Amino acid sequence: MRDTAVVGKSVNRADASQKVTGQVLHVGNIEMPGMLHVAVLRSPHPHARIIRIEKSRAESREGVVAVLTGSDVAAMPGVDPYFGPAFRDQPILAIDRVLHVGDPVVAVAAENLRSAQDALELVPVDYEPLPAVLDVLEATRPESPVVHEEIRPALSFADLAHLRPAGKSNVCYHYKLRKGDVEKAFSEADRIFEDTFTSPPSQHVPMEPHVTLAFVDENERLNVWSATQSPSFVRTELANILGLPLNRIRVRVPYLGGGYGAKVYAKLEPLVAILALITRRPVRYSLSREEEFQTITKHGVVFKLKTAVKDGLITGRECRVYWDTGAYAEIGPRIVHKSGYTSAGPYRIPNVSIDSYCIYTNKPPAGAFRGFGVPQLIWAYESQMDIIARALGVDPVEFRMRYALDEGEPFATGTPVQAFGLRACIREAANAIGWSEPKPKTTAGKPRGKGIAAGVKAVLTPSISGAIVIMSADGSVNVLSSTVEMGQGSETAMAQIAAEELGVGFDKVHIVQPDTDVTPYDTITAGSRSTYHMGNAVRMAAAKVRKELFAAVASKLEVSPDDLVARDGRIFVRGSEERRMTIPQAFLAKFGSLGTTITGQAVCQTSTIPMDPDTGLSEKCTEYWFPSATAAEVEVDPETGKVHVLGLYSVGDTGTAINPKHCEQQLVGGAIAHLGQTLFEFLSLEDGQILNGTLLDYKIASILDLPDTIKPVLVQVPHESGPFGAKGVGETGGLTVSAAIANAVEDAVGVRIKELPLTP
Amino acid sequence: MRDTAVVGKSVNRADASQKVTGQVLHVGNIEMPGMLHVAVLRSPHPHARIIRIEKSRAESREGVVAVLTGSDVAAMPGVDPYFGPAFRDQPILAIDRVLHVGDPVVAVAAENLRSAQDALELVPVDYEPLPAVLDVLEATRPESPVVHEEIRPALSFADLAHLRPAGKSNVCYHYKLRKGDVEKAFSEADRIFEDTFTSPPSQHVPMEPHVTLAFVDENERLNVWSATQSPSFVRTELANILGLPLNRIRVRVPYLGGGYGAKVYAKLEPLVAILALITRRPVRYSLSREEEFQTITKHGVVFKLKTAVKDGLITGRECRVYWDTGAYAEIGPRIVHKSGYTSAGPYRIPNVSIDSYCIYTNKPPAGAFRGFGVPQLIWAYESQMDIIARALGVDPVEFRMRYALDEGEPFATGTPVQAFGLRACIREAANAIGWSEPKPKTTAGKPRGKGIAAGVKAVLTPSISGAIVIMSADGSVNVLSSTVEMGQGSETAMAQIAAEELGVGFDKVHIVQPDTDVTPYDTITAGSRSTYHMGNAVRMAAAKVRKELFAAVASKLEVSPDDLVARDGRIFVRGSEERRMTIPQAFLAKFGSLGTTITGQAVCQTSTIPMDPDTGLSEKCTEYWFPSATAAEVEVDPETGKVHVLGLYSVGDTGTAINPKHCEQQLVGGAIAHLGQTLFEFLSLEDGQILNGTLLDYKIASILDLPDTIKPVLVQVPHESGPFGAKGVGETGGLTVSAAIANAVEDAVGVRIKELPLTP
Repeated sequence: MRDTAVVGKSVNRADASQKVTGQVLHVGNIEMPGMLHVAVLRSPHPHARIIRIEKSRAESREGVVAVLTGSDVAAMPGVDPYFGPAFRDQPILAIDRVLHVGDPVVAVAAENLRSAQDALELVPVDYEPLPAVLDVLEATRPESPVVHEEIRPALSFADLAHLRPAGKSNVCYHYKLRKGDVEKAFSEADRIFEDTFTSPPSQHVPMEPHVTLAFVDENERLNVWSATQSPSFVRTELANILGLPLNRIRVRVPYLGGGYGAKVYAKLEPLVAILALITRRPVRYSLSREEEFQTITKHGVVFKLKTAVKDGLITGRECRVYWDTGAYAEIGPRIVHKSGYTSAGPYRIPNVSIDSYCIYTNKPPAGAFRGFGVPQLIWAYESQMDIIARALGVDPVEFRMRYALDEGEPFATGTPVQAFGLRACIREAANAIGWSEPKPKTTAGKPRGKGIAAGVKAVLTPSISGAIVIMSADGSVNVLSSTVEMGQGSETAMAQIAAEELGVGFDKVHIVQPDTDVTPYDTITAGSRSTYHMGNAVRMAAAKVRKELFAAVASKLEVSPDDLVARDGRIFVRGSEERRMTIPQAFLAKFGSLGTTITGQAVCQTSTIPMDPDTGLSEKCTEYWFPSATAAEVEVDPETGKVHVLGLYSVGDTGTAINPKHCEQQLVGGAIAHLGQTLFEFLSLEDGQILNGTLLDYKIASILDLPDTIKPVLVQVPHESGPFGAKGVGETGGLTVSAAIANAVEDAVGVRIKELPLTP
Repeated sequence: MRDTAVVGKSVNRADASQKVTGQVLHVGNIEMPGMLHVAVLRSPHPHARIIRIEKSRAESREGVVAVLTGSDVAAMPGVDPYFGPAFRDQPILAIDRVLHVGDPVVAVAAENLRSAQDALELVPVDYEPLPAVLDVLEATRPESPVVHEEIRPALSFADLAHLRPAGKSNVCYHYKLRKGDVEKAFSEADRIFEDTFTSPPSQHVPMEPHVTLAFVDENERLNVWSATQSPSFVRTELANILGLPLNRIRVRVPYLGGGYGAKVYAKLEPLVAILALITRRPVRYSLSREEEFQTITKHGVVFKLKTAVKDGLITGRECRVYWDTGAYAEIGPRIVHKSGYTSAGPYRIPNVSIDSYCIYTNKPPAGAFRGFGVPQLIWAYESQMDIIARALGVDPVEFRMRYALDEGEPFATGTPVQAFGLRACIREAANAIGWSEPKPKTTAGKPRGKGIAAGVKAVLTPSISGAIVIMSADGSVNVLSSTVEMGQGSETAMAQIAAEELGVGFDKVHIVQPDTDVTPYDTITAGSRSTYHMGNAVRMAAAKVRKELFAAVASKLEVSPDDLVARDGRIFVRGSEERRMTIPQAFLAKFGSLGTTITGQAVCQTSTIPMDPDTGLSEKCTEYWFPSATAAEVEVDPETGKVHVLGLYSVGDTGTAINPKHCEQQLVGGAIAHLGQTLFEFLSLEDGQILNGTLLDYKIASILDLPDTIKPVLVQVPHESGPFGAKGVGETGGLTVSAAIANAVEDAVGVRIKELPLTP
């Protein structure tokens, strides 16, 4: 990598001071004259037929402006009442049937929130309860109730076109991979390890719940302010639903108070947009925390994992993964597919068979969650790796190093891995925890143990990011990007990349927040994809600006543009720094005028070689990988079984770290989030009702739950196509936490737990 | 020109329905929570020293948030208290001295306008009156009071760098041109025609007066909404004044209720921005109509014109033009320069001498006005052309045709004229009015007469326009441009150009209004420059988008991109239309995803060959020309002398008309505006006080003043470098009106009037 001035430096966050002073704009802060507020009546049943909805009393209540039902939406001319990123299976408001507890049935828009909420009590709904299916394995049985009789595929993504829903079954998508001859491996095996690991549904719990504000502007265009991770997608979804041209819809996204996957794809936007169109008033809907739990969850997973060992070597692995996607597919099918092919782990295993199923149940829908399904898989395969190592009497670190793929080796899909620092991650995690040091002692009667886990996630591919870079004559820069700043530090990273490429100070760069009128298309802000994709787009767009500047300077200084270097706002001849121009001088030479701008735009587009539908094999299934390892040290209370994590050592291969401090913070953030997922977070459901859907009952990791030691370690294997060699880091820290802790628990107390969370 | 689908068609305005329903957003409609309102105390003296300002009573008045004086501004660290586009001679609020009646002295920002206005009465200001200079010719005398002792040039434009203010004199800029030997021509002449023509100061009277709203946003960036014709310039000016990076300032411009040159360059923005920075509240200032008259005016001009004739031929011409720019230069020096070189007319005259002077007086500042000074010049030289023709016994049309420059001939500056339909304009005007038909009769005792006038304006060069075009996957398009829609129809023209280039329907294009965060630099929206400059930028940016689309289609259809044609949202193989793809299909082929975008950006930059400072000669002094002619028929009441215009025939060479109907409307609009300027509009000043500074006293042309017949005629001589051959039309209709009417009056009653307006 070239010598850099800004990239690779741990500059402070661009948005730090505004955030700590509470000044930043969130959708919840936007006040508009005449704005209406929304309350939604939701289904009390996991599955029922709607017999009758009586709106009239609510409609006549003072302050109520609109009362909307699913059949109202279905009757709107030109409106498609269904949406969804993989399948169009989700009604904007329930039509005929409700499919989960919390399914939206009636929406009221009123002058204030209290009026809207009160009006809900004036809307009697008669239901006929229907048999519900609430267990993911039961749901696969032919005799189970079928959640969706008919579903239509979504059309927005060519790479989702193969996600065709199955017939009248709750299995709405099935991914399979066949490598080698698994049956033969099992028939020839000395030993077969067969385990079932489960992960419960949980929730993202972003500090800011979902919130959307919509209005029709003076040019009859639909404006939407939304807390979304996917402004471009939301625009497309609204255009599809409403039958509007894309450029009649403007989606803007200010700062998000966290996303974690909860805010990808459309959520509240279709409903709020329709209310704005009907009422011709600005309309805002903010979810309560209870509604947040009913709106989107993390997939509960049952993973049946079977591994063949012959002569002490792993020879085959069979993965059957059952994903509970709830009442609507949401992005479940893509999760099942994209994470599916990593189910057998990043290991050299000659024979692999994977079947990964996306399954409807009458529960709240499940979607993307930091790690996009991979943490649930690693939980299983890394737990079993320890089981096997222990059974074979091999040190767990040594055991993993034996099988871990090396640069250029084929993944299970056949794709050769590239920029693949997995072995370095395992090594660094072992070093960090002092793996080879003497066994931990028992403290005050509490047994202690160490565990390690490794794993890998692939980045969402194909995917696309576009950026525009506008430099002004004083060297200050605006970057137009649809990447959403949701706490991950993308504004800072993009500003560093633009500053580096243009040779200006980091503080000279302003990031224009997502606004689909002006910021180019971006697939989503999720899946640790932005630093690579948007970073590349920003870098390439900035390079175009630099090229124009250099041309002006080169002609003035009578040198070749190739001999020029930009740094600290100056452009000089390499090797003779006294021959130089400032950026304003260069602009004046080019344009004869200050105040002028130079614009560059670029798109980063990655692609796959499509998988063979029968075998799941592809020479290129992803653009790049995120190897990761976690080492954990725990102490277990023998009386209560309570696990206290003493140390977490989180190692990620981020490629070149654009901002090392922020990369480390991301590793720590991911580790803490999954510490909660490992030790206590789960959605408790009974008869389809969430029993702990408030923050009084649902616990996330607090400062008191933090390990005594939490240490991030960056492994920086640069990716040759990444911006300055960067890959990404958003999810890496969380991938391998659960198995590392469970492995440490077994090390401490000899008990193998196969169900998350590891509650006492 | 190629066969076009949208360009050259008279589609309806893109903004028609919103405007007629009163929905469109103007700065005056924007409401912000906590917004303050501004009132300004202005000088009652044309020239005085400020002895004392007592702010305390006003400051303590309820509702008053800030009371600001010029010395407060001067004391702000890092703030330059002066601004101005040519010279930085104008204080944001008066410092030490006031220089004209209406000069802003104290500004109050208060919770409501009434409080602000009332507070002004609580601010006593003591003045020491000083001798004032109120006449433009007197101001040139050495013994006259000097308005500015010291002035600094502005630095934003390299092409204004030569506009160096003179020493301690009221002549702040002097343009000269020397071609041939004028002295010899006069010494050898048979006859010398020497006349002085005057034009009074007047005002633009846009329906919407100046208005600016500023606030500091949550990211500590200065946001300005302003009714300005020059968002890019305003941003630069504010950055210079406030010492802020350009990208910390965001200037947005919604629809303007007219501009006519009044709203170019900075006006209220510096004051309102400073009040917003001080109060940390949104602040809006809207001028009253009275203040509008005190803020910016049209230059009053004295034009001493001397023409030598020998053997019946014009052999030489001497022009001495005195421009009264008032107390601040504003853009006066550029007007004096840019219009200056056209002072002798578009005629073949071998010897020319021009001296054009920009002169300070203690009157309200004068700036750009539709035509940028050229109407005042044409008024003079076309009046004299008739005087000479009459004296020589030559038909005025024939006389002009004899001298009118032909394609490729050198202008007075030496620049060969190009795409120069002047002769066609004269011919068409004569045809339209029936010039060769029998003399008009007297009606009911009122003599009638016909007159003609021709003239030419050059476009502002160098100048720069940048545009970004973003096409979405459904073929809808956003155009990002800093061109201001102020009624002239630029949104429609740009949409037609983008639609034509991309082969989509006109209604598919949305124009994103100026927003300096995202719309690239544009010099100004003025001077009939936008259709050419921004039109070219939009066309080139769209062509880049088309190129990417074509590449995708070509690869899919296995043809060369050169064989493809885009039309009606389809891309097909030339000559075999069945081989085609829709735009969404092309996007899907390229990106595998709908909702995606393709972005193109381009800049149109025109340049001159700088003039020789001693001779004013240049091989290229402008990018292109606007030839124009008007024929007028009048009836004069012999009792009152009242002139009634029976017919106006307005002919303009617009190049290819992007939208013929709108071009015709522009010709008509320009003609009506200058009908008012010709017949009755003038600012009546006494001791520097405007006596008619309200719409009760100052009359503009109303429906009752319209001629019985008003007919626009387009001469379309395409410019090879214009978008589809277009030039521009914003000012053309007004250039030649005054002289045509005066010439008709002489034809009717034999009286030659040399002073505008032609009041009874």
